[in-house]
Amino acid sequence: MINIEKTTLNAFDCLYEESELVVYGAPFDGTTSFRPGTRFGPAYIRNDFLGLETYSPYLDMDLREFKLHDSGNVYIPIGNTEKALDNIYDTAKKIVEDGKVPFLLGGEHLVTYPAFRAVYEKYPDIYLLHFDAHTDLRDFFFGEKLSHATVIKRCWDLLGDGRIYQFGIRSGEKSEFAWSDSHTIMERYTISTIKEVVEVLKNKNVYITIDLDVLDPAVVPGTGTPEPGGVGFKELMEAIHMLKDVNIVGMDIVELSPQYDTTGASTAVACKLLRELTLTALKK
Amino acid sequence: MINIEKTTLNAFDCLYEESELVVYGAPFDGTTSFRPGTRFGPAYIRNDFLGLETYSPYLDMDLREFKLHDSGNVYIPIGNTEKALDNIYDTAKKIVEDGKVPFLLGGEHLVTYPAFRAVYEKYPDIYLLHFDAHTDLRDFFFGEKLSHATVIKRCWDLLGDGRIYQFGIRSGEKSEFAWSDSHTIMERYTISTIKEVVEVLKNKNVYITIDLDVLDPAVVPGTGTPEPGGVGFKELMEAIHMLKDVNIVGMDIVELSPQYDTTGASTAVACKLLRELTLTALKK
Amino acid sequence: MINIEKTTLNAFDCLYEESELVVYGAPFDGTTSFRPGTRFGPAYIRNDFLGLETYSPYLDMDLREFKLHDSGNVYIPIGNTEKALDNIYDTAKKIVEDGKVPFLLGGEHLVTYPAFRAVYEKYPDIYLLHFDAHTDLRDFFFGEKLSHATVIKRCWDLLGDGRIYQFGIRSGEKSEFAWSDSHTIMERYTISTIKEVVEVLKNKNVYITIDLDVLDPAVVPGTGTPEPGGVGFKELMEAIHMLKDVNIVGMDIVELSPQYDTTGASTAVACKLLRELTLTALKK
Amino acid sequence: MINIEKTTLNAFDCLYEESELVVYGAPFDGTTSFRPGTRFGPAYIRNDFLGLETYSPYLDMDLREFKLHDSGNVYIPIGNTEKALDNIYDTAKKIVEDGKVPFLLGGEHLVTYPAFRAVYEKYPDIYLLHFDAHTDLRDFFFGEKLSHATVIKRCWDLLGDGRIYQFGIRSGEKSEFAWSDSHTIMERYTISTIKEVVEVLKNKNVYITIDLDVLDPAVVPGTGTPEPGGVGFKELMEAIHMLKDVNIVGMDIVELSPQYDTTGASTAVACKLLRELTLTALKK
Amino acid sequence: MINIEKTTLNAFDCLYEESELVVYGAPFDGTTSFRPGTRFGPAYIRNDFLGLETYSPYLDMDLREFKLHDSGNVYIPIGNTEKALDNIYDTAKKIVEDGKVPFLLGGEHLVTYPAFRAVYEKYPDIYLLHFDAHTDLRDFFFGEKLSHATVIKRCWDLLGDGRIYQFGIRSGEKSEFAWSDSHTIMERYTISTIKEVVEVLKNKNVYITIDLDVLDPAVVPGTGTPEPGGVGFKELMEAIHMLKDVNIVGMDIVELSPQYDTTGASTAVACKLLRELTLTALKK
Amino acid sequence: MINIEKTTLNAFDCLYEESELVVYGAPFDGTTSFRPGTRFGPAYIRNDFLGLETYSPYLDMDLREFKLHDSGNVYIPIGNTEKALDNIYDTAKKIVEDGKVPFLLGGEHLVTYPAFRAVYEKYPDIYLLHFDAHTDLRDFFFGEKLSHATVIKRCWDLLGDGRIYQFGIRSGEKSEFAWSDSHTIMERYTISTIKEVVEVLKNKNVYITIDLDVLDPAVVPGTGTPEPGGVGFKELMEAIHMLKDVNIVGMDIVELSPQYDTTGASTAVACKLLRELTLTALKK
Repeated sequence: MINIEKTTLNAFDCLYEESELVVYGAPFDGTTSFRPGTRFGPAYIRNDFLGLETYSPYLDMDLREFKLHDSGNVYIPIGNTEKALDNIYDTAKKIVEDGKVPFLLGGEHLVTYPAFRAVYEKYPDIYLLHFDAHTDLRDFFFGEKLSHATVIKRCWDLLGDGRIYQFGIRSGEKSEFAWSDSHTIMERYTISTIKEVVEVLKNKNVYITIDLDVLDPAVVPGTGTPEPGGVGFKELMEAIHMLKDVNIVGMDIVELSPQYDTTGASTAVACKLLRELTLTALKK
Repeated sequence: MINIEKTTLNAFDCLYEESELVVYGAPFDGTTSFRPGTRFGPAYIRNDFLGLETYSPYLDMDLREFKLHDSGNVYIPIGNTEKALDNIYDTAKKIVEDGKVPFLLGGEHLVTYPAFRAVYEKYPDIYLLHFDAHTDLRDFFFGEKLSHATVIKRCWDLLGDGRIYQFGIRSGEKSEFAWSDSHTIMERYTISTIKEVVEVLKNKNVYITIDLDVLDPAVVPGTGTPEPGGVGFKELMEAIHMLKDVNIVGMDIVELSPQYDTTGASTAVACKLLRELTLTALKK
Repeated sequence: MINIEKTTLNAFDCLYEESELVVYGAPFDGTTSFRPGTRFGPAYIRNDFLGLETYSPYLDMDLREFKLHDSGNVYIPIGNTEKALDNIYDTAKKIVEDGKVPFLLGGEHLVTYPAFRAVYEKYPDIYLLHFDAHTDLRDFFFGEKLSHATVIKRCWDLLGDGRIYQFGIRSGEKSEFAWSDSHTIMERYTISTIKEVVEVLKNKNVYITIDLDVLDPAVVPGTGTPEPGGVGFKELMEAIHMLKDVNIVGMDIVELSPQYDTTGASTAVACKLLRELTLTALKK
Repeated sequence: MINIEKTTLNAFDCLYEESELVVYGAPFDGTTSFRPGTRFGPAYIRNDFLGLETYSPYLDMDLREFKLHDSGNVYIPIGNTEKALDNIYDTAKKIVEDGKVPFLLGGEHLVTYPAFRAVYEKYPDIYLLHFDAHTDLRDFFFGEKLSHATVIKRCWDLLGDGRIYQFGIRSGEKSEFAWSDSHTIMERYTISTIKEVVEVLKNKNVYITIDLDVLDPAVVPGTGTPEPGGVGFKELMEAIHMLKDVNIVGMDIVELSPQYDTTGASTAVACKLLRELTLTALKK
Repeated sequence: MINIEKTTLNAFDCLYEESELVVYGAPFDGTTSFRPGTRFGPAYIRNDFLGLETYSPYLDMDLREFKLHDSGNVYIPIGNTEKALDNIYDTAKKIVEDGKVPFLLGGEHLVTYPAFRAVYEKYPDIYLLHFDAHTDLRDFFFGEKLSHATVIKRCWDLLGDGRIYQFGIRSGEKSEFAWSDSHTIMERYTISTIKEVVEVLKNKNVYITIDLDVLDPAVVPGTGTPEPGGVGFKELMEAIHMLKDVNIVGMDIVELSPQYDTTGASTAVACKLLRELTLTALKK
Repeated sequence: MINIEKTTLNAFDCLYEESELVVYGAPFDGTTSFRPGTRFGPAYIRNDFLGLETYSPYLDMDLREFKLHDSGNVYIPIGNTEKALDNIYDTAKKIVEDGKVPFLLGGEHLVTYPAFRAVYEKYPDIYLLHFDAHTDLRDFFFGEKLSHATVIKRCWDLLGDGRIYQFGIRSGEKSEFAWSDSHTIMERYTISTIKEVVEVLKNKNVYITIDLDVLDPAVVPGTGTPEPGGVGFKELMEAIHMLKDVNIVGMDIVELSPQYDTTGASTAVACKLLRELTLTALKK
């Protein structure tokens, strides 16, 4: 069992100052209601990333051609949600203020909120692209405003209507789906509209948040709440490749709970998405 | 490890008397020839069902809008196959006689036989829809007439020719496939004919039995005999949604062996099918 | 994987009003710094308790001879430590005020604090017997006063010097061991002084808290922080049996993280201790 | 864990006709009430036996010096308890009639009954030495006379009072312990009386049945019902070595459920006991 | 999971002399750079093959209609790569010289080299069909010429340009992909060109090597280096069925690391491919 | 799954130049005959070492009071045993020549040979203390001179008679035990003679090699070949504490195969031994 790690992500070994994109981890799972364990996400990704080629035949690009930095994990004071989110915010804020693209590795989905907020403050005209099985549009969950189940609603508090695109959504309460009808642009079950969306958002500033449970549990069983009926890996990867036409200013991959999938396949998926997203964001 | 459970299925908390559909479990795996463990199926389903939304965006229906009851598990006297089957029969008999739809959670596939027989006695004009990787059409298995490998043959003993539709079948002895040619309507490998079948059976009384190994092992590895080359989850769910046009008078989901899939994905599949089948059966 | 449970502990099926001892669970692991999972403790114990005989040949007593109640789990609002502790306190308070012995199943060790406080308020002359691998005497941990690593220090805040007996301690910071020299009565590594301690405390009011990691990891590997060099099962059970001569007014068993031990042996240990402790407390 | 594919027990490769001791397996777990899986016992033992030296430094004897045969597994018709027991009886009968020592590998404890009966018929003056955590003295279990929980009572039906010695017993119903007081010679918890017992039984015919759960779950977690507080490995091995002074005419090792202990340690224990028992029985 | 102990592949029980196709195993993983374990491949396949029907409904053929032999495993001297490969070569050589089709079960991919070389020497006009996630075209790996990552380059040393067809390739270094452009015929990601390739190679001598990681990790997680984005099981099986029109003179299935997939699904895939490949090769 | 790691052992963060003791890892398992995986030993130890207190209450010493360095892992060229051993030798040689104590983390037991040889060359009057379940005294194993099963024989090639003390030995071939009678000083099964041995070797130069399987599998199930009947953890720790009176000039801990013990208990044992050995070696 990995408790904690200091390893640097392979090929993300450029100095911070010289880098154009910075990965940072947030091993936080403090509001996870059922199966905890996303705190182990960044450690497993960093370890298994060594087994992945740095070259993408899909994009004919190699991570080694770019200036990338891994700044390690944000300090998470156990049991203090507010403080943990503040620390994530501070890290994201610094990266984005320094003119670099912040790429967050979760942790549970709530970590997206402070990370997104920091990026939003720099780019108030930003759009949010949200890939997930769940709506995440509750206002409260277990009595709390800040939760993995409310995180997109909190982002909407910042953005307002029409600026959030949701893909692959297949689970939520009836009221969440109803609310989304007039506040977000939601594609249920699939991500077939991505091409049109990219055309609409061409060259616009975009933040991408990928909850790995948007993928079918056959592809990523290592997550807190497996939701059968998800999208396939190739489907998601092709969608990611289309994003080269928007201006990606921030990203995250969340909800990997690697210890539930002892085969390592779920972590391998997270690693490959990390590579493809990074290269897509840096594509000229 | 769950040994046994008393939990009631979430949202199936109506009184028996008022309910229109009743779930009951049969933790029986007494004739399992290789890997035992389907006895744990009902317990895992009940536990993990709590993590599933009661609302189906696919059908725009919510379990909470219906009168549903979970009557717990049938008593299984260990080591006495006949008595176990009798108890399952008695429970199914009472439910169906009380004018409710019985929905059985296995257990191995043999539990279908007494459950189906009880429903058949009420609706002698019934059709059987069988989703499975295996033919289950042997006459004897390990010298026994009552076995998971003979269960559909036993149902045929009641129904005779032309009343059993089989889908997704991809494994069996040569003689079983040959026999089926003149006695059942079998679609091999896939379930693409379901639409036509539903049209033929429109408004007719139907019993549905789903052996989870009809799905590909990538989707449900938690089963006794994984058979690669199965159907996908969406494929099966869409087939289920089409069944709204027949008159479902009994159902079961069997062969979940949850402890083999430590990720929980297999159980999540069973839970979602339970929700979608229940709502489909109750759809007006 | 068990997510949550409603099962009642076998043989703890008396009405609350008539009971003399009440078990309650606190599935809380909010300050766990490394491996989370003690939230699953109460569920696994309740499930596996069914496999344990209610009769103890050691004490020649049977749980069925007593009036015992299982009040289920305290509601734990995820991500809100303070509120969670308040709820535990409220439950303990009610039980103890109603003249019954409260027996708490954790959860991480921090749950002892509110439970103990409620009992302490009723019995201000109480002594605390603490079985653990760790000192748990820090004043702060990760910047927080309330933590699994500070819990006995918090109890000392209530009791003051000379009222806390610690057994089996083998891990902590140098300063914690030094502090204990003048504030608690600590037996390192073993529990061989228990007989003398019981004589000193004869007929006095005592609260017992058992962190399962006091036992060697060979006996209980299913815990967050395995500490080799612990006591054996028989050693601990014999110590427990000696406690019949003190007046037990409150108890807990904490830090079972059952999912790390897939053999079920760790949970079996917790179950047997629960039986023996209950019978010892009720012995006349 | 499979090391290599080999079906016959290493060093048990003598022809049946020439052998003095014959191992046979009974992969039967048909009356197991909780966790099934002892059906995998013989297979795991045969596989892992290859990793064990054939030489015992304790006894300074080597299996290769003796004429040993492994006759494989008895055919177990799934779901038919009576037939399964008959087959075990037939195999044991033949071996004992041919003047060889039968050594059975279970399977659940019920397999002892037919094996013992066959040996008893040849040696009606036989004594039974029973090592177990459980009394196994019920008359009925789940309504059945033949069960893993009644097996020693069934042997008593043959032997009558004073011919059964029980060691390490620590779990059962109150009435079972009471019954044993006047019908069997039971040592609770430990096996410290073995020396005296051997003196009493010197040169007498003895059958030995070892339920692996007599060992502490720290030593053998891979069993159906772990019972903390058991004996240690060295304790049991020393007891076995003392048995060289009785005349061992039959043996079994039962209740290994190897798949619950993924470390392989439980199977390693069974293998070493098999070696030491075999050599002890053949010692002149 | 071991179902039953049986060393010879079920239905491959013909005498060597009379057989037309011979399976042999090479439990070698000596150059595996990350997760070892392919040494367990042949053992798991032989065990679980018993759970697979010998009849293929896809081809309407039964293994029992053919003369098949399983010659067991090649002796692998641990820690001596050269000697291990020599032994594999010798076995393959004998089989092919005796006019039979050799079918190798790995083991890591390096085992293909000696097996292929032996077949190549008999059929110097041979073509190699290579299904894999990885290019395997490095010249050196960890400083060694003989490695799982160089194996196809080594085969090219024998064959030269235009004789190697690669399918499903999705991972490698940039230089490997570049090199392949002028030396092999590579289809990236998919196997959709198989039909055309078969037409080109009609009736020609062909060796088939299947690295199981060509399949998506959702299908075969039990492999050393899971590479998301692979082909589906049906896709691969249909490709195999098309191969009936070439003259298959040698085959292998490699890189199953079964212990990483505790569900058994990965091994089930290997078993079914073994059946379908065998029948396809023998189809007239 | 950890593939590789760069983490530095907690509290071993002094500069190499200033350090008095240096830890180095050798993730080599190239001659492992059965279950591979000791290559993961160093990575797991480094990760889990963070969860261990740096203070030892047994010795009242803290790692932070000493100058310790962790030089990471020796480069292991996969598949080339000779080269791997050379690299280990080179690292050990440099450390010992620089006047520091080398402390090796294996890997399989063969890694001891080059490490010991380097230390022996500096201290030709050295004694070897060997804690193990196995004799490791074969001359050849699988035809190779360099093997985990021959490693102590290779050390004897350097040292000659009377300079090797073996403790806890309980497995080997008859001829190995016989050979040891006149060449090494062997204590079988236990380590009760350690006190006398230390007196004999007082202030002499000593190399200590601990094969973790000297401990009982209940304590360390995470090893390649579990051998029941081993020593307890406290027994070994007390023996280690006695070694403060010899002059420790080199050490190793080998044969941890951490992935077989998913509870983490085996790794926790290795970590605590590493702490106690380090402090004992540095005690004045």
